[in-house]
Amino acid sequence: MATRSHSLSGQLADRLAATRRLSLDLAAPLSEADANLQPFPDASPAKWHLAHTTWFFETFVLRDHAPRYRPFDERFHFLFNSYYEAEGDRHARPKRGLLSRPSLAEVRDWRAHVDEALAKAMPNLPAATLELIELGINHEQQHQELLLTDLLAGLAENPLEPAYGELSAPACFAIGPLTWLPGREGVAKIGAVDGGFAFDCERPKHDVILTPHQIAARPVTNCEWSEFIAGGCYSNPSLWLSDGWAWVQQEKITAPLYWHGDGTIFTLGGRREIDGAAPVSHISFYEADAFARWAGARLPTEAEWEDFASGADPWLGHQLDTGGPVIPRPGGGVFGDVWQWTASAYLPYPGFRIAEGAVGEYNGKFMSGQMVLKGASCATPRGHSRASYRNFFPPAARWQFTGVRLARDA
Amino acid sequence: MATRSHSLSGQLADRLAATRRLSLDLAAPLSEADANLQPFPDASPAKWHLAHTTWFFETFVLRDHAPRYRPFDERFHFLFNSYYEAEGDRHARPKRGLLSRPSLAEVRDWRAHVDEALAKAMPNLPAATLELIELGINHEQQHQELLLTDLLAGLAENPLEPAYGELSAPACFAIGPLTWLPGREGVAKIGAVDGGFAFDCERPKHDVILTPHQIAARPVTNCEWSEFIAGGCYSNPSLWLSDGWAWVQQEKITAPLYWHGDGTIFTLGGRREIDGAAPVSHISFYEADAFARWAGARLPTEAEWEDFASGADPWLGHQLDTGGPVIPRPGGGVFGDVWQWTASAYLPYPGFRIAEGAVGEYNGKFMSGQMVLKGASCATPRGHSRASYRNFFPPAARWQFTGVRLARDA
Amino acid sequence: MATRSHSLSGQLADRLAATRRLSLDLAAPLSEADANLQPFPDASPAKWHLAHTTWFFETFVLRDHAPRYRPFDERFHFLFNSYYEAEGDRHARPKRGLLSRPSLAEVRDWRAHVDEALAKAMPNLPAATLELIELGINHEQQHQELLLTDLLAGLAENPLEPAYGELSAPACFAIGPLTWLPGREGVAKIGAVDGGFAFDCERPKHDVILTPHQIAARPVTNCEWSEFIAGGCYSNPSLWLSDGWAWVQQEKITAPLYWHGDGTIFTLGGRREIDGAAPVSHISFYEADAFARWAGARLPTEAEWEDFASGADPWLGHQLDTGGPVIPRPGGGVFGDVWQWTASAYLPYPGFRIAEGAVGEYNGKFMSGQMVLKGASCATPRGHSRASYRNFFPPAARWQFTGVRLARDA
Amino acid sequence: MATRSHSLSGQLADRLAATRRLSLDLAAPLSEADANLQPFPDASPAKWHLAHTTWFFETFVLRDHAPRYRPFDERFHFLFNSYYEAEGDRHARPKRGLLSRPSLAEVRDWRAHVDEALAKAMPNLPAATLELIELGINHEQQHQELLLTDLLAGLAENPLEPAYGELSAPACFAIGPLTWLPGREGVAKIGAVDGGFAFDCERPKHDVILTPHQIAARPVTNCEWSEFIAGGCYSNPSLWLSDGWAWVQQEKITAPLYWHGDGTIFTLGGRREIDGAAPVSHISFYEADAFARWAGARLPTEAEWEDFASGADPWLGHQLDTGGPVIPRPGGGVFGDVWQWTASAYLPYPGFRIAEGAVGEYNGKFMSGQMVLKGASCATPRGHSRASYRNFFPPAARWQFTGVRLARDA
Repeated sequence: MATRSHSLSGQLADRLAATRRLSLDLAAPLSEADANLQPFPDASPAKWHLAHTTWFFETFVLRDHAPRYRPFDERFHFLFNSYYEAEGDRHARPKRGLLSRPSLAEVRDWRAHVDEALAKAMPNLPAATLELIELGINHEQQHQELLLTDLLAGLAENPLEPAYGELSAPACFAIGPLTWLPGREGVAKIGAVDGGFAFDCERPKHDVILTPHQIAARPVTNCEWSEFIAGGCYSNPSLWLSDGWAWVQQEKITAPLYWHGDGTIFTLGGRREIDGAAPVSHISFYEADAFARWAGARLPTEAEWEDFASGADPWLGHQLDTGGPVIPRPGGGVFGDVWQWTASAYLPYPGFRIAEGAVGEYNGKFMSGQMVLKGASCATPRGHSRASYRNFFPPAARWQFTGVRLARDA
Repeated sequence: MATRSHSLSGQLADRLAATRRLSLDLAAPLSEADANLQPFPDASPAKWHLAHTTWFFETFVLRDHAPRYRPFDERFHFLFNSYYEAEGDRHARPKRGLLSRPSLAEVRDWRAHVDEALAKAMPNLPAATLELIELGINHEQQHQELLLTDLLAGLAENPLEPAYGELSAPACFAIGPLTWLPGREGVAKIGAVDGGFAFDCERPKHDVILTPHQIAARPVTNCEWSEFIAGGCYSNPSLWLSDGWAWVQQEKITAPLYWHGDGTIFTLGGRREIDGAAPVSHISFYEADAFARWAGARLPTEAEWEDFASGADPWLGHQLDTGGPVIPRPGGGVFGDVWQWTASAYLPYPGFRIAEGAVGEYNGKFMSGQMVLKGASCATPRGHSRASYRNFFPPAARWQFTGVRLARDA
Repeated sequence: MATRSHSLSGQLADRLAATRRLSLDLAAPLSEADANLQPFPDASPAKWHLAHTTWFFETFVLRDHAPRYRPFDERFHFLFNSYYEAEGDRHARPKRGLLSRPSLAEVRDWRAHVDEALAKAMPNLPAATLELIELGINHEQQHQELLLTDLLAGLAENPLEPAYGELSAPACFAIGPLTWLPGREGVAKIGAVDGGFAFDCERPKHDVILTPHQIAARPVTNCEWSEFIAGGCYSNPSLWLSDGWAWVQQEKITAPLYWHGDGTIFTLGGRREIDGAAPVSHISFYEADAFARWAGARLPTEAEWEDFASGADPWLGHQLDTGGPVIPRPGGGVFGDVWQWTASAYLPYPGFRIAEGAVGEYNGKFMSGQMVLKGASCATPRGHSRASYRNFFPPAARWQFTGVRLARDA
Repeated sequence: MATRSHSLSGQLADRLAATRRLSLDLAAPLSEADANLQPFPDASPAKWHLAHTTWFFETFVLRDHAPRYRPFDERFHFLFNSYYEAEGDRHARPKRGLLSRPSLAEVRDWRAHVDEALAKAMPNLPAATLELIELGINHEQQHQELLLTDLLAGLAENPLEPAYGELSAPACFAIGPLTWLPGREGVAKIGAVDGGFAFDCERPKHDVILTPHQIAARPVTNCEWSEFIAGGCYSNPSLWLSDGWAWVQQEKITAPLYWHGDGTIFTLGGRREIDGAAPVSHISFYEADAFARWAGARLPTEAEWEDFASGADPWLGHQLDTGGPVIPRPGGGVFGDVWQWTASAYLPYPGFRIAEGAVGEYNGKFMSGQMVLKGASCATPRGHSRASYRNFFPPAARWQFTGVRLARDA
């Protein structure tokens, strides 16, 4: 990726503008108080997402590469750093919801200030810096998904069950019985190809060995999950990993997150009937694993999933296009609706090297205690997905749009 | 208190209106996000205070005694109950800051709805119900003080150090050395007289025995507290109660709350110089007790303090008159500036009986694990104070305007 | 207490020897492992009690007042200090159960070493030092009671339900309905008289005012407590203090400690039938308070109890005489069987002053967050009790032999 | 493993007897109190290990396959089950140290009872049941290692620094600079071969792809670790995984477990000088990973390590032969001295299936949140090791003899 033409810079500017606009669109319906909700330490307020994504561009692009850039407010550097140790101290994560100031309007002004400076600077930036902008776009897309899932978690705490927006009614859609597709056997390649954007953790592309297996043609549905519940599986320890069973008991888990006992679910559109034909969502790795065991199957490995998806078009499927509420819908494809838990821990690929400097903290330091998810969800901005993408969360996390696609030995 | 004339009802209506207005004035400068801050579980958002005080009138007066009253929103009954078990389930206290809805505007509408209904109902209410209104006024005054102290705690979490409003500069004021006033010796009476409003816990009036003692003519100042710090007293276990020493070590306490190491303090007016002549504030019972031991003195008992204050006018002193920021100021009298910790546990007076019904939960059930504070602070609405008043907080609480007036055996 | 004759020293030596012997007798039936059990941080192993009481004499008498005394093992000073800050660092309380060494035999050797040195030193000690020995005897008596209650708590954790020793069968004993005795009204004196041993916190003797009241002729029985349970009182918040209700819910309390749901109780003699006629034991202050409220009564104040007990002989009643298991028995008197919770917080008496030096840490620094218990229990060494005695525990503590004697306004 | 000759049964009986004897030898020097130490919830008392290994044989062999067997004590089934959900309720793990009864002598009697019954039953057991005995031997060997490491953790809590036994002085031994061995590249096989004992998790044997790499000829030494400390690496976040850095800060980690700041270390032989030439031990995965990053290397994957070790004799090296204290020593080989952390999460091999029934809980349910360790330590019973062995612990665990062997890309 040594050189880039100016027209490439122009395309990047368009994508940057579209991404920046989408963030504002996502936050548009929120009140100051909505935008400041932090339901638990790992979820951040929407306003914080708007600010932190701006901090990224200000810090890694403008401060470092636009010599005459003047920061909008020096104090924001401390406030809106997420976890970059190399960038110094930062505001404590569990206290993001206590930042009633700066106001949403001030954060929007900051965004405009940074966007303007970026637009002015871009024509003169070298390729390596343009890559940082591309990284910033992808970073902001990740935070767009988090903005929606964190917001859902925040609104879910309110007994008034406020809706972020209006969702269309579930389509009347019948789902057929699960069918199985043959997986490839033998040596395959996974990881991102050279050229084109990918996160560092997706490289190097490398050989893996696939053993004989099959992979489900569609994700597990809400309807199937209801059978798992009805079968008493949440109280049968033989189905669970030891850590999972401890978690189920301690947290008193009896259903996916946001499910109510009466057949309804809380969504970004408020409370509504569970759509039996839609993929189950908001389940932990532990639940996905227990379900697979119950079903006589298992989770796919990351390599199996990636090989399976290598022919699919990541621009298709039910992904995020505009501001407003989203929910997994029946049908769908390989990408979209729900992220799919794999049996693989999030660990470095052979030959992976953490980059120098603060940007090197992006992915590598999280390679511990997390499981890989593949695909994309209804909250993933379209264009952000690819087969080599490695999403990751701790095994008990449920507030993302996380589901499960089964595999089995052949 | 068997009968009340209509003119009494008219006076009550005026006081009710003034109290209700003051709450709105206090909240006026706040953004939606400011009004929703909950810095820790025991502190509530300003919006919640506006709502809960309204809940009190709607529940105990309008619902129970105004037959045709229609609640503004049935769901608010669950949301804004504080701790009344007899009123059923309620929203979890630590999650009050997650209620981005109802909005501040909706809460204001609710307030107007209730105020209107109260105004309409009052002329026809019997005396016993008017007493509930008087209780509601006093209840709201307590929450006005909490609104300010909880807000201060919330803003203090923000590294931007936002000010709630503008405070005038500290007056140039010299404080002389501490002098001692003789306390009365022998049998004295404490507790509220019959007639006139008082909380249940202030009654019955009863005899106590006072041993020979003296009481300080003024509270301990910030200047004196600085000497306590400079003397290494926060690291000298021999000055502390065992629980206090455990608290100092676990919480790493080295100064009053909101003090910075550089001679400044965070206030409702933002950060400013500590005023050496003003009474020290934001100290725990443990700190007050350790200071007294260091000073060769002790805390006054509740009875000593109350007898001492029996001749003072509780309408005087630096108390709350209007919306806007407050801070303890030099000078002052018996009431105002800071609450004063006593050596007395908050326990029932001889013959105390908890009232029947939900209102009976007001005070009696908290008579465990708390210490009595006397007087009033700069955040106490003027008119709310009297010598028999029994404020109470756990011994480690610091976010109120709490100070110390010394006593000693004579 | 300025001078003491030599014959007084002789009497003291006899009492010292008897007390030291009783401790060994109490520990005699224990294995090394039994003697090292620490079921929770506030309970200590029996071996630790044997050692710590020895530490007290070695430190405050021999080290300070017997010039040629050589400590048995210098390292024990750190290991067996309980909470005396002035004596320097000490081994962490929650880790006492991890001291498998020194062995029980080594601790017994240490005891013999110290006993011998005390016997040799005593004839030449001045009166003030003999008072320290008297304090040491009383200190050891307190630990004898704790040895039994901590041991009970430790054995109770074992599903094998091991008995410390054999208890005689419950006597067949009928208890009549509760009767009430008139309490004194007006000014009375409480606190320890001058002369004779008392802990510092029992002084100065001082006047109190007693309001008209009655006090129950006997403690509440297990039979009466069963009615409290059957009446659903553990799930009725209106009976409980707010802290008590939080405790009941969090700890899932449904009966006194050591009660099983089948009418049996775990005791130092193993599991056995609950004796309905015996005083209820192992209840918290919160439970005592809730029971009293349910019974239309209240707890006595410390002053009421002490005045009531002023004519009773504290050498009578069911108290501890020899090694072996104990349990509250029907009948009994003012002293013995169970400690009785009062409505009074453990706070200093008027004019109380903490003594200088390490011994001054004995009582004063615990005057926070605790409630007073009066009387004595079946585990209190006979001779240790008196009406002015102030036992104290936090309101949720239940592992002592704690019961309740009711009072009511007259 | 379909059939076994009687002579095989005889060999098994010899191995069984030797293993059972070693457990007793390991516990021989312990007092009742030593044998009951539980320093933290994941470490068990030595007496519990003696009992639980006996429980395993009584439950899975004698109860299920020796028809006339009478359990020694029915209650032990509940007390000494570790984690087998299918075997019903069990005693809470954190409370194992509270079982002062049964005594060590009773547990020894139980062992004898079970050993006798096993000896009597074995000649008539079918091959499948003999396999359970082989599993029981291997299970007991694992607990022998835990007995030593848990005991070390327990004794380490005692400020008297008691020795479990006497260790010979460190040999005077010089260690040369680290050299690197070439690893194999391409497809290799890992996992246990058919025939011969292996745990279920070691199968199926399967192909893996090895990328070009080198592996260190010896583990990292204490001397090298001292440089890591001296280089300030425990306070440099850029060297650590995010979880590791959080752990270092929260637990205030500054050196391997049992290291004192003065160049000494606590061992099973008491406190002694750190032997610079010996492999570093008692480090977490996080520390191993940070050290590797600092050294410009990385941890080997499980496959790299296993392929590297495939030619080494697992009977060699410094492993456990008899009762008494152990410590890693300079020199050594592939097996022995310290377990070696790998970069691989403990996850199922392709085609792995959890066995039916309670024995199926042996390994599979722990495949979450743990990292693989390879090799063997000085506390691993000789004969228990093999290249395919998969030891596993959570990434923060340090109380095993855990060290690190580096790898790097070639």
